[in-house]
Amino acid sequence: MKTTSEASARVGDAVIYARIDEAVTDAAADLVRWRRHLHEHPELSNREAQTAAYLIEQLREIGVDDIRSGLAGHGIVATIRGRAVPQFDRRIALRADMDALPVKEATGLPYASRIEARGETGERVPVSHACGHDCHMAVVLAAARVLVSIRDVLPGEALVVFQPTEEGAPLDEEGGAQAMLDAGAFQGIEPTMVFGMHVSPLPRGVVGYRAGVQFAASSRVAVTFAGTQAHAAMPWLARDPLLAAAGFITAAASVTRTIEQTRPATVTLGHVEDIGRYNVVGEKVTVHGTLRCQDEATLANLKAALSVAAEGHATAQGCTVDVRFLQDVPALVNERAWIDAALPTLRRSTPRGLVFEVPPTMGYDDVSVFVREFGGIYLLFGVQDTQMAMDPSPRLEAAPGGRGMFANHHPGFYADEETLVDSVRIHCHVAVDHLTGLLDAGATAVGA
Amino acid sequence: MKTTSEASARVGDAVIYARIDEAVTDAAADLVRWRRHLHEHPELSNREAQTAAYLIEQLREIGVDDIRSGLAGHGIVATIRGRAVPQFDRRIALRADMDALPVKEATGLPYASRIEARGETGERVPVSHACGHDCHMAVVLAAARVLVSIRDVLPGEALVVFQPTEEGAPLDEEGGAQAMLDAGAFQGIEPTMVFGMHVSPLPRGVVGYRAGVQFAASSRVAVTFAGTQAHAAMPWLARDPLLAAAGFITAAASVTRTIEQTRPATVTLGHVEDIGRYNVVGEKVTVHGTLRCQDEATLANLKAALSVAAEGHATAQGCTVDVRFLQDVPALVNERAWIDAALPTLRRSTPRGLVFEVPPTMGYDDVSVFVREFGGIYLLFGVQDTQMAMDPSPRLEAAPGGRGMFANHHPGFYADEETLVDSVRIHCHVAVDHLTGLLDAGATAVGA
Repeated sequence: MKTTSEASARVGDAVIYARIDEAVTDAAADLVRWRRHLHEHPELSNREAQTAAYLIEQLREIGVDDIRSGLAGHGIVATIRGRAVPQFDRRIALRADMDALPVKEATGLPYASRIEARGETGERVPVSHACGHDCHMAVVLAAARVLVSIRDVLPGEALVVFQPTEEGAPLDEEGGAQAMLDAGAFQGIEPTMVFGMHVSPLPRGVVGYRAGVQFAASSRVAVTFAGTQAHAAMPWLARDPLLAAAGFITAAASVTRTIEQTRPATVTLGHVEDIGRYNVVGEKVTVHGTLRCQDEATLANLKAALSVAAEGHATAQGCTVDVRFLQDVPALVNERAWIDAALPTLRRSTPRGLVFEVPPTMGYDDVSVFVREFGGIYLLFGVQDTQMAMDPSPRLEAAPGGRGMFANHHPGFYADEETLVDSVRIHCHVAVDHLTGLLDAGATAVGA
Repeated sequence: MKTTSEASARVGDAVIYARIDEAVTDAAADLVRWRRHLHEHPELSNREAQTAAYLIEQLREIGVDDIRSGLAGHGIVATIRGRAVPQFDRRIALRADMDALPVKEATGLPYASRIEARGETGERVPVSHACGHDCHMAVVLAAARVLVSIRDVLPGEALVVFQPTEEGAPLDEEGGAQAMLDAGAFQGIEPTMVFGMHVSPLPRGVVGYRAGVQFAASSRVAVTFAGTQAHAAMPWLARDPLLAAAGFITAAASVTRTIEQTRPATVTLGHVEDIGRYNVVGEKVTVHGTLRCQDEATLANLKAALSVAAEGHATAQGCTVDVRFLQDVPALVNERAWIDAALPTLRRSTPRGLVFEVPPTMGYDDVSVFVREFGGIYLLFGVQDTQMAMDPSPRLEAAPGGRGMFANHHPGFYADEETLVDSVRIHCHVAVDHLTGLLDAGATAVGA
């Protein structure tokens, strides 16, 4: 049974929700404008300079209370100070990632990217927001606008966090969520909850959540075999690093056999970088890949098994090998307590209550670093013309007459703009409910 | 026993030889000037436009009788018409190749190449005459100068042949000796003997010959595996062409086991070209390599075995495969009859008679196309500060106090310029002896 003051607080919440919904509607035009600008001007990981400048310009116009920028490259943390209470216990962080991908956009949209930039190895590559981070930034900007407009009734602080380099820094660079933490981005303004939603091919407006591991743990791997250069006509003068690499690539495909098969794990080597020619055995070959699994112990085991395979194949060809694991990202774990605490808010603020549990994926998102550090949840948000088919087995498929289904990173990936307004509303409801104490893993645990 | 007229012809030859030697000495300064200019301005295969323009300019100045140019790209055949007889039976062709390599010169010479150009895949590459074709062109130009100066006593015609693209055309282009033949470069002026010498790390001034196979037969191979692109975290959605390629590379290293081991054969894959990334399984991977052996039957067997390996590994990964064999070059075979006919001339015209039999190599030279078509020989000519060591086994080594030993194609490859004069003399003596009938495989056969 609730006390009178709690009940009156809940009545007050209803007033706040109404103000949020009105402000969200007002922000819809800005949301689309911001999103299209960002979509048309994508930048690669650790290169988000113009993106950051644009965001800062909008944040200033919106009137946030404080802006920290240049965090671990181009990261930004802006603070919106609630005026409802002199003291407060909670600080919500709404997080968007900033970087785009070396993918040639094929959506045919009038504001499609035509940008090219220098890729990781210096070559010109097409760049586009094929992972939808443009949507995330626009949604969080719009949420900032809404929260600033209700600052007078906010009983705590809201941070809007723009994180660069979610897709991973170029080889030999640092960047992303861990780098922002290490740079002290949240020093003195530590949030008590982190929230965000990744746009996905789920049906428009659907919120997908998973208690437990939602995204995989990840490590990038670069294995360099070094041998002896020789003319291809005289292989007996060479120590052939490409033969070592070929053996290693084959072996790596069976490395997950060393992991208990109930623990999901993948090892994929996607790129070979060599300095040979058709008629020259080059002295060096580097194989690039990525490891995915759901827990740190498995990640360590995968690394060990891959290292053994690399050493063995190098030795077999008289080569040396250098194995580097880079840019480790922990699994994204949505604690059950946080999910339980958030579900009422999500169901209330999501149109028609379209909140569903979804399966885990082997993709990763380094928002996991923030969630692990501060608590909170990270969800999926559907933005495509898709539907759940049930026959013969449950699966997502393109809805008839719609724009199709395209996975994140696909050249055809798209997001329905009108649906993004719903995401803004959900962000703001979650923020307010956390600041009022209605949504909190600790609070829920106490009430349980 | 010789007839009187033959004996008097031989006396006449001595006069010609003396004139050659004098003219060669006169040409020495031009030789060095031409060679340095060409060395400083190298061009890649099928891109020898400036080289050809320069050669044509010199040929005009030298005063050859006719110039065919633009043959199969930038090929040139110039004719020098002897005035000694109204009718003639023989036409000697002196052949030089024109193209340079994507190798960064490291000789430290004042006229070292600083040129860069677009490589086969569009990237900027350093370019240098690391195979010594600059020497070949300068030597043949100088020989043209000498032969023009003794035109009045030449009993036949001499062709100077500048052949582009000896190192192989860019993938998907044609070029080189076969293309020149196909373009009718010698139509109506078919030579009765082809002669040339490749600069090599043999000791300065040494002529190396081999009766039988001197250079290997060669075929370039490009094997393209096509699968299905997917994110690296979801390999079950991919058909991984890199796994097929890795299996194929490993298998290709044992393909020569299918060839009788008394028949030399090498298969080397030197370069992998993929469109994947560390976190993307690309849909296509191409493996580039080269096959070498000494006869056409073995080449056919190697191709068949490689094709089987490619098909098998593609099938195993659910991929398709396209196997292309390109730019076939026949083995360079110096017929015993030609070598026997040439040895007296070589021993006479080479300082101190430094003419030695040398072992075959698995390198190739598409001068073999001309030699096979018209007869003749192609030899090695030493231009480095090296010596033959005999202990514990015969081998070439750097001479003490010299500039070292660097194989063709090595960034440090160099040629002693003063020694090149000897090569000019040998070219001219061979030309004259062939035109007078002293050096001819058929004539030798008759006399044997």
